[in-house]
Amino acid sequence: MAETKLNRRLRLGMVGGGPGAFIGAVHRVAARLDDRYELVAASLSSDATKSAEAARDLFVARSYTTYAAMAQAEAAREDGIDVVAIVTPNHLHYPIAKAFLEAGIHVICDKPMTINVAEAEELVTLVQKTGLIFGLTHTYTGYPMIRQIREMVLGGELGAIRMIQSEYAQDWLATPLEQTGAKQADWRTDPARSGPGGCLGDIGTHAFHLACFTTGLTCEQLAADVTTFVPGRRVDDNIQVMLRLSNGAKAGLWASQIAVGEENDLSLRIYGEKGGLTWRQEDPNHIVFTPLKEQPRIITRGGPGISAASTHATRLPSGHPEGYFEAFAQLYTDIADQITARILQQQPPAVACLVPGVEDGLTGMRFVDAVLRSAKNNSAWTSL
Amino acid sequence: MAETKLNRRLRLGMVGGGPGAFIGAVHRVAARLDDRYELVAASLSSDATKSAEAARDLFVARSYTTYAAMAQAEAAREDGIDVVAIVTPNHLHYPIAKAFLEAGIHVICDKPMTINVAEAEELVTLVQKTGLIFGLTHTYTGYPMIRQIREMVLGGELGAIRMIQSEYAQDWLATPLEQTGAKQADWRTDPARSGPGGCLGDIGTHAFHLACFTTGLTCEQLAADVTTFVPGRRVDDNIQVMLRLSNGAKAGLWASQIAVGEENDLSLRIYGEKGGLTWRQEDPNHIVFTPLKEQPRIITRGGPGISAASTHATRLPSGHPEGYFEAFAQLYTDIADQITARILQQQPPAVACLVPGVEDGLTGMRFVDAVLRSAKNNSAWTSL
Amino acid sequence: MAETKLNRRLRLGMVGGGPGAFIGAVHRVAARLDDRYELVAASLSSDATKSAEAARDLFVARSYTTYAAMAQAEAAREDGIDVVAIVTPNHLHYPIAKAFLEAGIHVICDKPMTINVAEAEELVTLVQKTGLIFGLTHTYTGYPMIRQIREMVLGGELGAIRMIQSEYAQDWLATPLEQTGAKQADWRTDPARSGPGGCLGDIGTHAFHLACFTTGLTCEQLAADVTTFVPGRRVDDNIQVMLRLSNGAKAGLWASQIAVGEENDLSLRIYGEKGGLTWRQEDPNHIVFTPLKEQPRIITRGGPGISAASTHATRLPSGHPEGYFEAFAQLYTDIADQITARILQQQPPAVACLVPGVEDGLTGMRFVDAVLRSAKNNSAWTSL
Amino acid sequence: MAETKLNRRLRLGMVGGGPGAFIGAVHRVAARLDDRYELVAASLSSDATKSAEAARDLFVARSYTTYAAMAQAEAAREDGIDVVAIVTPNHLHYPIAKAFLEAGIHVICDKPMTINVAEAEELVTLVQKTGLIFGLTHTYTGYPMIRQIREMVLGGELGAIRMIQSEYAQDWLATPLEQTGAKQADWRTDPARSGPGGCLGDIGTHAFHLACFTTGLTCEQLAADVTTFVPGRRVDDNIQVMLRLSNGAKAGLWASQIAVGEENDLSLRIYGEKGGLTWRQEDPNHIVFTPLKEQPRIITRGGPGISAASTHATRLPSGHPEGYFEAFAQLYTDIADQITARILQQQPPAVACLVPGVEDGLTGMRFVDAVLRSAKNNSAWTSL
Repeated sequence: MAETKLNRRLRLGMVGGGPGAFIGAVHRVAARLDDRYELVAASLSSDATKSAEAARDLFVARSYTTYAAMAQAEAAREDGIDVVAIVTPNHLHYPIAKAFLEAGIHVICDKPMTINVAEAEELVTLVQKTGLIFGLTHTYTGYPMIRQIREMVLGGELGAIRMIQSEYAQDWLATPLEQTGAKQADWRTDPARSGPGGCLGDIGTHAFHLACFTTGLTCEQLAADVTTFVPGRRVDDNIQVMLRLSNGAKAGLWASQIAVGEENDLSLRIYGEKGGLTWRQEDPNHIVFTPLKEQPRIITRGGPGISAASTHATRLPSGHPEGYFEAFAQLYTDIADQITARILQQQPPAVACLVPGVEDGLTGMRFVDAVLRSAKNNSAWTSL
Repeated sequence: MAETKLNRRLRLGMVGGGPGAFIGAVHRVAARLDDRYELVAASLSSDATKSAEAARDLFVARSYTTYAAMAQAEAAREDGIDVVAIVTPNHLHYPIAKAFLEAGIHVICDKPMTINVAEAEELVTLVQKTGLIFGLTHTYTGYPMIRQIREMVLGGELGAIRMIQSEYAQDWLATPLEQTGAKQADWRTDPARSGPGGCLGDIGTHAFHLACFTTGLTCEQLAADVTTFVPGRRVDDNIQVMLRLSNGAKAGLWASQIAVGEENDLSLRIYGEKGGLTWRQEDPNHIVFTPLKEQPRIITRGGPGISAASTHATRLPSGHPEGYFEAFAQLYTDIADQITARILQQQPPAVACLVPGVEDGLTGMRFVDAVLRSAKNNSAWTSL
Repeated sequence: MAETKLNRRLRLGMVGGGPGAFIGAVHRVAARLDDRYELVAASLSSDATKSAEAARDLFVARSYTTYAAMAQAEAAREDGIDVVAIVTPNHLHYPIAKAFLEAGIHVICDKPMTINVAEAEELVTLVQKTGLIFGLTHTYTGYPMIRQIREMVLGGELGAIRMIQSEYAQDWLATPLEQTGAKQADWRTDPARSGPGGCLGDIGTHAFHLACFTTGLTCEQLAADVTTFVPGRRVDDNIQVMLRLSNGAKAGLWASQIAVGEENDLSLRIYGEKGGLTWRQEDPNHIVFTPLKEQPRIITRGGPGISAASTHATRLPSGHPEGYFEAFAQLYTDIADQITARILQQQPPAVACLVPGVEDGLTGMRFVDAVLRSAKNNSAWTSL
Repeated sequence: MAETKLNRRLRLGMVGGGPGAFIGAVHRVAARLDDRYELVAASLSSDATKSAEAARDLFVARSYTTYAAMAQAEAAREDGIDVVAIVTPNHLHYPIAKAFLEAGIHVICDKPMTINVAEAEELVTLVQKTGLIFGLTHTYTGYPMIRQIREMVLGGELGAIRMIQSEYAQDWLATPLEQTGAKQADWRTDPARSGPGGCLGDIGTHAFHLACFTTGLTCEQLAADVTTFVPGRRVDDNIQVMLRLSNGAKAGLWASQIAVGEENDLSLRIYGEKGGLTWRQEDPNHIVFTPLKEQPRIITRGGPGISAASTHATRLPSGHPEGYFEAFAQLYTDIADQITARILQQQPPAVACLVPGVEDGLTGMRFVDAVLRSAKNNSAWTSL
């Protein structure tokens, strides 16, 4: 676990994440797990009463009716929050992030970062201008084995990358769930709140980011076929993308929320000149790595041959499964290291600096935009 | 195992499959396994001495120097061969098949059927004209669980099909093996002998055929990105295809021979409105089937809930693995049933009529052609 | 997550778990994860300076030099701890538990509960006398799928149980690690601190408890072969046990710390008249359940067909892996529910009452004792 | 595939294996697969009419009413059989083997070899006296990966062996199937025809033989608990055995035919000082091998790092699954090599000499006997 000399926990605020929300509770567990934060201020719901009740249930000292009031008040306090977590539906990410950045407060933001490229570009500008820390919770980058893969690929163990298959398949929207009043399905299939991409923005961005994060490659062009299978749905629920990456690499990306039988099946397969590897999110503690013409090797979290970046993100000995919460917590803990270093006027350790940031958020929005443009143009190759 | 009243084994001839060949020996095991054939005539090699020696080693009674002589002589004999197996490199399939069909002899032909669409169309015409039996050895259709899948999908257990992922990944051509004198690599990467598709024709056609065979869907349009990763290679070694199928279904197809770490990783995932399922060739005795909102079920060859078509192709109780030879043998045995019925002037049993035929071979060549046309046209959507 | 009306977090104390310890940090994460506790008092190390430093690093308000002083002082405070967690080496569990129970403080104790049967019997008496809550952290009982199994078996879904295979294999003691100064290996192989059972007490007790917990069966007799493979080791490192359970069921139990290649491979297979099932700790979110003559079903945490007891222990949707920390946290959270109910003078919910207690601890010590007696008596059948 | 200079196929006879039999058909496929035998004589059934009909259906030239007549007649012919396959129920193995050995004919015998130790000892004497070849079809020793394991263990790659877990679990006798008229269940649960061991003789002997075959270790003592779970059954259906092997190794053996959900789940786990490995019959083409403190490696049939003995038993490239028939065929092919060498007055290749023989059959019967004696003696340690 990360070392710090700061003699207190960081003070965390939260916007969104009230009753019925999913990701807010995950953020709170993640913040707590390594004991680097205390949640002291929140605007949990747009309903003032619910917001106050939820705050009391969560032992949050200061509850606000609006994020704007919260940003202003916390910025003014001596003991105001160090950082805010934004866990609202997507369309609110931008104004809230803007408010807190302008108030001088670091930001942890759920993904996708915004609902369009223009907003994303503005946030990039604002982060550059303020110099504040901006963490984007692409959860899966917190998994130790994803960091292991990144270190292996960048270290050349697979040679030049040729082909990547990145997939994210779910089935929770195989039926018109949004027509049943389910809160999560409702806002995630509403373009006004979710953004123009459905499955594309919700999980396609994870699959895209992971391919880039682990290999350091960028996307030059993509050709996409975007489908809405469920009648009446207002956004896509299945996307197929062919990608041409930097250095001549190719990739296939498939994201679907109608793949009956798949729960949260994010997977990554990377093939280089000298080796290949496979990782599946539902079995996150293992990689199968195959050096060319050698026997495949099973790499386990905490086991033999583990990289420094992977060890940094590991809490338990091998064989004791870590999961989704721990991956999420790693992002929080790394951001805590970054903020702590800022407070102590130190350099944060390099291993704590792998958290996706505002630039990744912008790239993600450009990916969403390019996929939709390609699809509208009958799958023509389209630049990001 | 199939019942027959014919009081003899069928007489099999073989063209190709001499020393250094791979698939010829597989065909011979397949023909022998269920004891329906005896190999009595052959032209095993283009080298007459080698051909004769190989025939003697294999206890083959009659050895011929050329396939033309063989077709003529066998057709003239009272006890001539009932059927010929063609196991040469691809460019010879067409002339040999033509010669034997014209001589009135049934044909079992390895795939891809020809090296272009025109040849394939001619074979279709010739088979229609002669009324002879033409079996195309798409091996994987002989697996009991593939037939199980077909019966489940056609029986509506998955509902309307929405999305298919069909993949065939290998790594044996990850290096320029053809430059080392390896016989298999040499001809399979030579467009003159293999046809214009490399990986595309060799294994892409399997992945394509399997998607259609199991679902009954046809391809309306495809968009393809075709790559040659290994420098100096004369054919493709990696293809990515997006497909628009009949009934609004979509599919992704990936075939690669440079996917380091993959041995013979053919897999099929099918998602319908009411269920999904997964099958992997390297674990061919199992399917995972997930009815919508129910627990996934493991279906095992010979186990509970097995379909008639699957049982027909099963020899051993569940838990006793059957493999590639048995799948291949099933094609031979089904063809034996068909030929036997012809001899006995009966109808063959329906379960013995799932063997791919000359029309499948034509569709395969149209697939190869469409992929190459799309690729040349910067991945434009292309009809078959 | 459990609902509570208590308007504060529970106050937790900890004895043991200072620098170099493993399980203490796990207990702290577990206590934090569902936000039901705050750690306010501790005696983390037998070294006073280290203890104080560690307390400061962990933001613990009150640090004590001895557990006796801590029990006395905390009992005297208005805002004293509600419950103490005992995470020392095994030989200290008994005196510490005794001290806190006598001070009127609830106890969470790591396992094995004591180092002999006599101590265990005394704790049973003391808990009965005081009426205090005593939780024994058999971690694996906190896994949702273990609770699912229990509910399925007790609900009769497998019919009468015939055969159980319970295994716990590790390899971290395959070499004489204790001779290298490794702290964990040192005390765990020292009979004075670990108790007379090595592998037997450390992990064999888990495998035994799990078999009983999930089935409700008790052990009538056992026959054991106990081995020390590593030269110079003072305790066993491999045990084989045959068990005769209640209702005529049989079981096999194997625990080993020299099984090279096994990380933390605890597994459970249960076979009844009407069904069988399998669970592996390293893939804790899944069960394979096979009803007699039906297709095996994969049951996933949070997925279709999940029992109430399993849902109670679940935080994330299916496909988002939960792991070891979450299982451990479940025990803490259930104990929190129990303590809260006590404070509020309510009945705790039944689903929160599956945490192993002092009687389980006694049964575990009787198991250790019986195994060692059987082994000394050349594997004679021995009653607990 | 093995090379031979014999200019003919070997002449095979068969006793047993008529209508309704299971293993006879397997032997015939096995004999055919590598084209080393032709089945020319048989006494397929004790019913003369059925026997003749079955022979005709199988294209067998010479059909006999009794094995005695067959042995006599075939021995007298110039072109008599080279070898006989005995595939009857167990109680007939001994008299038939005796008859053919005394007639000077090599024997391939199904297992268990006899129904008691005395018969087995007589066969050993008879084989020694006649010098004839006697192959015992412990199928699983024909798997390439089992031979790979043997070569690795004997080559020291695991160091001194400490612990073995050998299991064979099925569920086909979980209900009183023998009371329904099922032919296989009927004789296999009849002590008069099957021998005194039920599950013990049928599959326990496989698990025992495999542990010894792969490691070269012998059993010094065993302690067994033998159970009949299904009411009315006349033989055991579940056995648990603890074993003390040579060189201080230990083993656990479990065989069951009432383990609901297990199809043919034979598995082997071997742990030595320097490494461990795992193999499962239902996925026979892979081994997981874990060298101490290194990453586990997946060894695939035909893949990198394969031993000579394994390559010898391999027909297809890696990724093309071989299964049960191919394992069985390997025994036939190796015996063909041995007989051919005898005919040609040569030494057979060493790799063809791994087929279990009459001594293994005797050891198997001693195992059965010792398990039953131990069980009767309340699981006392018993020497073979």
